[in-house]
Amino acid sequence: MTVGIEQTEERGPLHVQIASSLRSQIERGELTGGQRLPTTRDLAKDLGVSRTTVVRAYEQLAREGWVEGRVGMGTVVRRGPSAPREDRINWNLLLTPRIQEPDSEYRQVLRMLSQTDLLSFAGGLPSPEFFPGDAFQQLADGVLRQQGSRLLQWCPIEGYPPLRSWIADRLGCVMETVMVLSGSTQGIHLLTQAFLEPGDTVLVEAPTYAGAIQAFRGAGARIVSIPSGADGIDLDRLGAVLDRVRAKFLYVIPTYHNPTGGCLPVAKREALLALAARHGLPVVEDDPYSMLRYDGPQLPTLYSLDRDGCVIYLSTFSKSVFPGLRIGWLAAPRKLLPRLVSLRNVIDLFTNSLAQGSLYEFCKRGMFDAHLQRVCNEYRERRDAMAVALRRYAPDVSFDVPHGGLFIWARIPGEVDAHRLLEEAIDLHLAFITGSLFYPESEGRDRIRLSFACHPPDTIADGMRRLGLALQRSLSSERALSADAKTREAAIPHVVV
Amino acid sequence: MTVGIEQTEERGPLHVQIASSLRSQIERGELTGGQRLPTTRDLAKDLGVSRTTVVRAYEQLAREGWVEGRVGMGTVVRRGPSAPREDRINWNLLLTPRIQEPDSEYRQVLRMLSQTDLLSFAGGLPSPEFFPGDAFQQLADGVLRQQGSRLLQWCPIEGYPPLRSWIADRLGCVMETVMVLSGSTQGIHLLTQAFLEPGDTVLVEAPTYAGAIQAFRGAGARIVSIPSGADGIDLDRLGAVLDRVRAKFLYVIPTYHNPTGGCLPVAKREALLALAARHGLPVVEDDPYSMLRYDGPQLPTLYSLDRDGCVIYLSTFSKSVFPGLRIGWLAAPRKLLPRLVSLRNVIDLFTNSLAQGSLYEFCKRGMFDAHLQRVCNEYRERRDAMAVALRRYAPDVSFDVPHGGLFIWARIPGEVDAHRLLEEAIDLHLAFITGSLFYPESEGRDRIRLSFACHPPDTIADGMRRLGLALQRSLSSERALSADAKTREAAIPHVVV
Repeated sequence: MTVGIEQTEERGPLHVQIASSLRSQIERGELTGGQRLPTTRDLAKDLGVSRTTVVRAYEQLAREGWVEGRVGMGTVVRRGPSAPREDRINWNLLLTPRIQEPDSEYRQVLRMLSQTDLLSFAGGLPSPEFFPGDAFQQLADGVLRQQGSRLLQWCPIEGYPPLRSWIADRLGCVMETVMVLSGSTQGIHLLTQAFLEPGDTVLVEAPTYAGAIQAFRGAGARIVSIPSGADGIDLDRLGAVLDRVRAKFLYVIPTYHNPTGGCLPVAKREALLALAARHGLPVVEDDPYSMLRYDGPQLPTLYSLDRDGCVIYLSTFSKSVFPGLRIGWLAAPRKLLPRLVSLRNVIDLFTNSLAQGSLYEFCKRGMFDAHLQRVCNEYRERRDAMAVALRRYAPDVSFDVPHGGLFIWARIPGEVDAHRLLEEAIDLHLAFITGSLFYPESEGRDRIRLSFACHPPDTIADGMRRLGLALQRSLSSERALSADAKTREAAIPHVVV
Repeated sequence: MTVGIEQTEERGPLHVQIASSLRSQIERGELTGGQRLPTTRDLAKDLGVSRTTVVRAYEQLAREGWVEGRVGMGTVVRRGPSAPREDRINWNLLLTPRIQEPDSEYRQVLRMLSQTDLLSFAGGLPSPEFFPGDAFQQLADGVLRQQGSRLLQWCPIEGYPPLRSWIADRLGCVMETVMVLSGSTQGIHLLTQAFLEPGDTVLVEAPTYAGAIQAFRGAGARIVSIPSGADGIDLDRLGAVLDRVRAKFLYVIPTYHNPTGGCLPVAKREALLALAARHGLPVVEDDPYSMLRYDGPQLPTLYSLDRDGCVIYLSTFSKSVFPGLRIGWLAAPRKLLPRLVSLRNVIDLFTNSLAQGSLYEFCKRGMFDAHLQRVCNEYRERRDAMAVALRRYAPDVSFDVPHGGLFIWARIPGEVDAHRLLEEAIDLHLAFITGSLFYPESEGRDRIRLSFACHPPDTIADGMRRLGLALQRSLSSERALSADAKTREAAIPHVVV
């Protein structure tokens, strides 16, 4: 017998896709209890995949209770009572619109990127090779030894006091305005919960952080976008929007912007704050990258310049040191913070105190600053390597060299669609993020975001070479298509003059 | 000069309250720039507090920039430009109703309990004296040594795979239906986000976990409550409600209930599931306590009995081992889990992977089970000590002895109000939680929740002795009041017959 394997929604490795397809067939009754599955050898041959892949798929189904091995029979679909439970509930009817549709372009791109054999410039992550694992291990050890019981017990919602205080000193504020977060993504969620009801308006830059768009959209907010480039948000446009729109807040990334790498100059920071104060507009300053500075001046945060209590500040250790620890922080005007703390109480109570304690020691002993210095040197070199390789291998691509952060935001030739380019790239085992994910409306099809942090210079050069190749392939197929379209067009008789 | 210190909303230690009062006076302009504050000695004398307390209050105000020390002048209110920023924004107008009012009874009780010198039976926490800190420290050490970089980097949203798999084995399900959470409170929040829109109905037991009430109320849900006692939720009432109400889900704590300590018998579990399946009602089973079993049979979870895919299961390590690590988990029907994972993506991405990795080692090596055995022995003894002491010192109080969990749910004589009793108790430096916090409507004024986990038997006896005393005081003042009321009543001439 043969078993067809259809396309499924399932992302991930091949064996997962095969298991998923078989599972659906069992659920729909197309494969019934007692029926034999093809041998792994036959199915592997039919599908043109390795036998190991099919074995892994069968093993997964057995673990899940859908099939079982039987002596002399091979693999057989289980029947009746031992079959996995059926859902009696139509979850789609019960879920809120907050849960995004699974077929969005966002998820489609994530699915494409989940292949494991890609040379990836997609993630917004620091490079694990620089993690000061040994040093940190010694610290965590000492911290647990000295105050284990304390750190394993409850901790204030606002955070572990010594860490709050260290953050406050760094920010130049008092610790009473600081709350430790489980990553700055949690800060965006917290503010979404605090401010946004369905139909409320929120202002963002275009482009901006994709996760923020997802969060605001999930809350049912109306997202109004203001163009943002190498010198940050367009203040004339912002002013014009504020004259006619009442927004709950502006979400902005003023320093080493994700994805553009842009920076808001000091004078524009002052002007933005004046505008915000005049309109009573809260400004959410997301600042995960400012510690990753490679050249150019050190810019003051909006938070430090704010004299009117308009700015809510978010940052994180995830881009500079340890994403796995999930430690970020928020600083807010004094009257707002207790309200956010009370909201946090129903969200997840507080942040892992062992991680807070260990990280505090890491900061206090100057190891954080030493680490920053090291990674900035490495990332600067990688940024430069990417810029050189892009100019060499993909001269059709234009970009600004950012002064910090993790990304080069590249413009590809107008006739190529970034999504198509990504398909070509994945064929060459190369990955990046398509620009449109960073826009709330359909824009950015001529943009891609390349992260330079996670590979050494020669690997970056190899990646950019592949990008150049993918670009050539896209260009020639676009031209062929367009020539083809012209031919077809020419073939249509001119009936109407 | 003298400075009056008024009552403020501020909770916490005395020096914080004093600083808060002075801060308000500066903000309102009652204390103006350049004005001298009284000496710490004078103010301490006026207020009847220690001088250290006043010094700490002044130091806090100085750190915040409200006052400064000046040579020959003492402490002076700062003026003009260096004064802290004013809020240009009226946050109350911008915040959603999700952020609860600060003057709720819930917060009032929390404030009362925040005094530091209380012998507290209030918290729902395990006792830190039993934390296997040394063993855990060695594990964390080894884990970081062996796979530091991996654990400090990104981790799948669903959780660290070995821990997911351990949890799944324990629950008797496949790991694909399990997601690791940052505590089970996060699970309640996640489900609130997934299912509840303002006006939606959610069913809960009365009483139930106060945090769940807060979360559902914050989401604007209509909370319909079903009575629940020593043998769990009242199924007749539930059935009657389901005949006329369309609810998004039922939130239920079937084993060693918080606060009642009650247990749903197996037959009622089956009946509850049948009812849920018939009505297509999702059941959220919150199960933080079942591992803390002292006697009586081990009961199957609703999740394990469910054949219709109605049950979403929540549990946590916070009640059995380490609250500070913030690790809980959720198991959900296969079709629902991916939707919850995609929602988690905008909430906080994933759970601290160092904590997940260390906890996995702790579980894998059998240390978790050994720890459970130890704390169950200790907590059983404490539960018995509390029962004995309650009967001895507070014979007017009635209660059931729970078979597991952390709480005794006590009924106090009807003429005493639990909130008044707590005031008397706090005078005697004793704390517990008033019953009304566990009800969505105004009920439970004759109930208090006593946690027996955190003190050794002799301290428990001392606490119950104080409780008896507080009860006597409340009773005699109630009787005096009531006699007084009768006198006054008698004095009113009977005009109307």
